Amino acid sequence: MPADKIQLPDRMFHPTSIAVVGASSSTEETGWVKRLLDFDYKGQIYPINPKVKEIQGLRAYANICDAPDPVDYAILNVPARSTLQALRDCVAKGVKFVHCYTAGFGEDGSDEGKRLESEMTKMITGSRTRLLGPNCMGIYCPESGMTFSEDFPKEKGRIAVVSQSGAEASRLVLLCQDVNLYFSKVISYGNAADLDALDFLEYLAQDTETDVIALYVEGVKDGPAFMSAVRKCLGKKPVVILGAGTSENGARAALSHTASVTWPQETWKGFFKQIGAIPALTTDETADIIQGLNRIREMNGQSVAIVGRGGGIGVVATDICERAGLKVPPFSKETQAKLRGIRPDAGAGLRNPVEPKLGMEGATEFYLQGLPIIDADTETDIILIQMAVDIYGGHAPDLTQILTESAYALCAAADSIRKPLAVALFTGGRTDTVLAAAAARDILTKAGIAVFSGVESAARAIARIPLTKSQNSSNKQIPNLKK
Amino acid sequence: MPADKIQLPDRMFHPTSIAVVGASSSTEETGWVKRLLDFDYKGQIYPINPKVKEIQGLRAYANICDAPDPVDYAILNVPARSTLQALRDCVAKGVKFVHCYTAGFGEDGSDEGKRLESEMTKMITGSRTRLLGPNCMGIYCPESGMTFSEDFPKEKGRIAVVSQSGAEASRLVLLCQDVNLYFSKVISYGNAADLDALDFLEYLAQDTETDVIALYVEGVKDGPAFMSAVRKCLGKKPVVILGAGTSENGARAALSHTASVTWPQETWKGFFKQIGAIPALTTDETADIIQGLNRIREMNGQSVAIVGRGGGIGVVATDICERAGLKVPPFSKETQAKLRGIRPDAGAGLRNPVEPKLGMEGATEFYLQGLPIIDADTETDIILIQMAVDIYGGHAPDLTQILTESAYALCAAADSIRKPLAVALFTGGRTDTVLAAAAARDILTKAGIAVFSGVESAARAIARIPLTKSQNSSNKQIPNLKK
Repeated sequence: MPADKIQLPDRMFHPTSIAVVGASSSTEETGWVKRLLDFDYKGQIYPINPKVKEIQGLRAYANICDAPDPVDYAILNVPARSTLQALRDCVAKGVKFVHCYTAGFGEDGSDEGKRLESEMTKMITGSRTRLLGPNCMGIYCPESGMTFSEDFPKEKGRIAVVSQSGAEASRLVLLCQDVNLYFSKVISYGNAADLDALDFLEYLAQDTETDVIALYVEGVKDGPAFMSAVRKCLGKKPVVILGAGTSENGARAALSHTASVTWPQETWKGFFKQIGAIPALTTDETADIIQGLNRIREMNGQSVAIVGRGGGIGVVATDICERAGLKVPPFSKETQAKLRGIRPDAGAGLRNPVEPKLGMEGATEFYLQGLPIIDADTETDIILIQMAVDIYGGHAPDLTQILTESAYALCAAADSIRKPLAVALFTGGRTDTVLAAAAARDILTKAGIAVFSGVESAARAIARIPLTKSQNSSNKQIPNLKK
Repeated sequence: MPADKIQLPDRMFHPTSIAVVGASSSTEETGWVKRLLDFDYKGQIYPINPKVKEIQGLRAYANICDAPDPVDYAILNVPARSTLQALRDCVAKGVKFVHCYTAGFGEDGSDEGKRLESEMTKMITGSRTRLLGPNCMGIYCPESGMTFSEDFPKEKGRIAVVSQSGAEASRLVLLCQDVNLYFSKVISYGNAADLDALDFLEYLAQDTETDVIALYVEGVKDGPAFMSAVRKCLGKKPVVILGAGTSENGARAALSHTASVTWPQETWKGFFKQIGAIPALTTDETADIIQGLNRIREMNGQSVAIVGRGGGIGVVATDICERAGLKVPPFSKETQAKLRGIRPDAGAGLRNPVEPKLGMEGATEFYLQGLPIIDADTETDIILIQMAVDIYGGHAPDLTQILTESAYALCAAADSIRKPLAVALFTGGRTDTVLAAAAARDILTKAGIAVFSGVESAARAIARIPLTKSQNSSNKQIPNLKK
């Protein structure tokens, strides 16, 4: 990172003007200009294209230097061979941030690609211009109307993503959207020729609009500086990190993807041990942990009360939780006695896991009568509810109605429960059960309840949530997140 | 197991008559009688209920002994306290198989429960009657029209399940149905007071209608006998085993569920190492392995060619595969050169993972042009195709059409591919992408292609498939399965 550069300012996420260099004049494909317009970007947009006069109803300019006003942010969408000239123009114009979308640089393994990338870095040295990329999707910031996908939600949230991969960032946004979680800033930064994870982390540590940070990183160029940047965040908010390219051939793939030299799994393990950030191994797990950090609060311990379906489903759920590092201890004698009071015919299924009466109606009844009893149990810290949609109610003709009623009952019960709560809502692929499950998930997550796609994903996420009364000093400082 | 008993005959799965002792006269709930009728059971049904004259249009009898003809199979659906008398009547009638659905015996932890179960076992000793259960769902055999759930498919298949848990067996049936896989015989056997896994395994080893056996087991009473029974199957067909209750509290939960004393994880590990059965840790994993055993053939090695989405998605997929024990080596120089011939502008994304042109149309084109090239690659053994539905085509208004066209193209390409093939078809929860994915999954699985819900589930399953040219003698004997 050039030493003479200014600290990353808020302007990057709230530019007053954006130029699209190489703006598409096609009316068929969705280009950067149309995407910004559709996403309600409120600033000035300057399409740069020497071949046309107008794009999407906006005046087009032959060169960025022709734009009548200063340009905060430029998106380079030109072939790799034309990038140097485009960047030179941006520097001349005094553009503050240049996002180079184009690929074909250090990551393609050719000498020419490496040379081009090195030239780009040299070109901005000593200038007021900072470079994002090359080979990246750039910025998604719903508040300012910046996006790199027309599929992203316009809703604002309090999660930030810093990702070398645009596709990984996209999957995280979409997976979180499914559970009604939204974002403050998402940054896809590709080859990191200039701006790197460090810069974004320093900014996000201070960002009052961000409560949780997720990082997808392939290469760490400066280990100690990276560690220091993550530490700055951890003092204020949790950081979950997916370190990719940890396997032998994953490392090779990452070199082809972003020209990154990755860390092996052992290095990451040491890093996590030392610093208290939260490790994730897959994109789905990252999304699950993000949800857990947002919705599972006041974890005083890792003992789980499993509610929902007993029998073999309960036995397997118990094994899954304990394999993930959690415990599923028997309820206290007092709790067991109270549960027998409301389910005198339940046999042995009241010890943990606890089995409501069969069917969704039985579950609904139990949420209202049984959860307060389990909330008072002294042996468990968190309640995990299994909603096994297919085997519960697959044959019910009014499945969606029954399940949504059950979800509303759980929301009502959850209001007076002090223990943290998580739901494993799972079903096979039969369309009616999938749609019913989606309706229930929407109700529950809108009420702020964490909903996972299975016991395994729930257990993995729960096991990663820092304990409120943790002995670990780096976790101690993480405040409870706003609801 | 009483020594004087006959070997388990086929009659258990194809009874000429079934009596339901304690048949429900309710017209509202679905009882055993209605379920058999709806499932097209062709034999004689005798409802036994002293309070009514007729159930579901069939003449009801006060006692099983009043049934006019011999009874092959009786289902006991009476309260636990009435079970002994009902069983006594069955023995007097000479019923060949009694399925005790009722719970509240050894598993409930009470002295009375244990006494009742022990009395049941004594009662059948020396008789011609064998007991299934108590505390179990019994038999699902689509060929004969026996079922314990109205949600189960009527289609016949070649998979058998032997499960102490009815709910686990049900989930397996439903998960496999989602990928168009069907069953020969499914047995839920609960507390195993008489008939145990051993008996079913000995039968299924010889069963010409069964190609693959899946086992959900909590307790193994006689280790050496169990091992010998599994060995008999392994000589003829693969056996996948979910050993449940392996964690400390999972063992406790299993004791409450089926009164079983479980094996810890270490014992299972030793067992699998010694015998060559395939271990599974969760129900979903069991279903994935069942699908793999049915559809992934001629595995000559564990090197995976990943096709579909490169970038970060490809890096993470590579890590997932290698963590599961697979390899993702670079393609041969020759393969890379040929791929460059059809994708000259692809940059670095041709080495493995390989990245088709963006969008589903790009994927479709690649299936037809690229897969034959990868099929000839000398460095890889199996092709794993990533269909990332949400990030590929979430914004396409005609997503289902594009995706189903892509699925048909893949089916066409697969016809001439010799390498085994698997698809990881994944999406978030957005309804349009879920429905499109379901349509594609249906097309692919009907064509006999293995489709998993993600790279992690695909990799886990692939890693469990025995190699065709394995050095392991227990695997050597497993023949290729019929298509």
